[in-house]
Amino acid sequence: MLLHFTKMHGLGNDFMVVDLVTQRARLDSHQVRELADRHFGIGFDQLLLVEPPRHPDMDFRYRIFNADGGEVENCGNGARCFARFVLDQRLTRKRELKVETSGGPLTLKVGSDDRITVEMGTPVLEASQVPFEAKHDGPKHQLRLDTPIDGIEQVEFGVVSMGNPHAVLLVDSVATAPVATLGPVLESHRRFPNRVNVGFMEVVDRRHIRLRVFERGVGETLACGTGACAAVVTGIQQGLLDQRVEVELPGGRLTIEWPGEGHQVVMTGPAEKVFDGRLEL
Amino acid sequence: MLLHFTKMHGLGNDFMVVDLVTQRARLDSHQVRELADRHFGIGFDQLLLVEPPRHPDMDFRYRIFNADGGEVENCGNGARCFARFVLDQRLTRKRELKVETSGGPLTLKVGSDDRITVEMGTPVLEASQVPFEAKHDGPKHQLRLDTPIDGIEQVEFGVVSMGNPHAVLLVDSVATAPVATLGPVLESHRRFPNRVNVGFMEVVDRRHIRLRVFERGVGETLACGTGACAAVVTGIQQGLLDQRVEVELPGGRLTIEWPGEGHQVVMTGPAEKVFDGRLEL
Repeated sequence: MLLHFTKMHGLGNDFMVVDLVTQRARLDSHQVRELADRHFGIGFDQLLLVEPPRHPDMDFRYRIFNADGGEVENCGNGARCFARFVLDQRLTRKRELKVETSGGPLTLKVGSDDRITVEMGTPVLEASQVPFEAKHDGPKHQLRLDTPIDGIEQVEFGVVSMGNPHAVLLVDSVATAPVATLGPVLESHRRFPNRVNVGFMEVVDRRHIRLRVFERGVGETLACGTGACAAVVTGIQQGLLDQRVEVELPGGRLTIEWPGEGHQVVMTGPAEKVFDGRLEL
Repeated sequence: MLLHFTKMHGLGNDFMVVDLVTQRARLDSHQVRELADRHFGIGFDQLLLVEPPRHPDMDFRYRIFNADGGEVENCGNGARCFARFVLDQRLTRKRELKVETSGGPLTLKVGSDDRITVEMGTPVLEASQVPFEAKHDGPKHQLRLDTPIDGIEQVEFGVVSMGNPHAVLLVDSVATAPVATLGPVLESHRRFPNRVNVGFMEVVDRRHIRLRVFERGVGETLACGTGACAAVVTGIQQGLLDQRVEVELPGGRLTIEWPGEGHQVVMTGPAEKVFDGRLEL
């Protein structure tokens, strides 16, 4: 059978998007891995499936599969592409969408500038819940390295969970930050029992940061949506940032807003279509 | 404008193929680089353009661009995809094609099993023409390493040019061959003034080898067509192989035939279509 799909990206985080509202298909995890291969297949970070909702008050069901074939809960860059896709494909005319995900309901808004706003959930600030084995709670933690890295013996950072664990370090410049060396050491440090995503944040001013993220199990990526949220939450907690911040990532820009504790973090950013494809399954 | 294209691969060496017989388009090198990007674009090793021939006795003109936007002369894996493409797209019904390339005319044959046979040119065996600064001519050369690698102080290899320079080393097992360590050292050794592609060949029997290739300027690849030719030519010259040899590469299998000095090397292998796409330029 012929399967139609669209290739999209959000700040370089790239997706194969498949409409399963007007098409019928089943993809098993072996097929997902084959399709994800960048030389033998289509190549993508994640596969996004657009399905009819199971509950009548929702607009769509949104499912996400990693390149290894496993289903995951949410992906901010993917959610923006999802919203852009259902509008472009005329599967809806609504610009505010209620979407079912395996991580719970999600609201997506498409702005007049075609940038998409996604609610990214309420950050968890208790260190034990991140989880991080902290000596105290609060916006700053210290950790002594077993072996110094680039002359660094002790690091200071904030911790926050956006559904996944983050440590955020303040640096003078993202250009010279020790992402490749310190990133993997913190990622798998024993005081982060579930490992951790490591953000390196340069504060340009109260409304503008630069950020590089070493993602857990992946390495440095072009644009980590939850990492951008975690960095802004940390910066606000430490009194360095306002409620609305432009985040400059290697793959492009996101706007992150957070009114404060107990509130959702809201992310706004672009979604780009690259091409339409069709594939014999 | 809307550009139709097809994504194909030959043993994992992957291509964007564009029909410029029935479509008109111009792609400058900046656009080629953008399209080649695996996250922001389509992603490919090379772009293949199918153009009308400039000479009446030829069937097509075949042009190849690397991911960096530069035009190159030939690519064996690409040539097989080219032949499969023009048949699949019904741009011809011929199963033997005469094709213009910037490296000269090329003959392609599509077999009844859909495997494609490509003439890969006549190997150049004089060391000075490869070029390699040899102490003598002949099927075997030695080179002393400045610094031992994995305990290896001296290496023995054959040299051959298939339009590009190759050194081929005999190994007991490709699984344990020092491709990542010895490959780059030989690649840029001073006795190869234009650098060199380095093949590691395991002879299974006189009609079957296994091969891994460290490609000049690239690193190890899934399937180097000229490397397969160079390995078989070297093995025949050293009396280890018959005229027709199955070559097992990490990306799949090729059949290489060489009747001997002064004759062309002939390569037969698969070409696979992955998907059809269309893109707004």
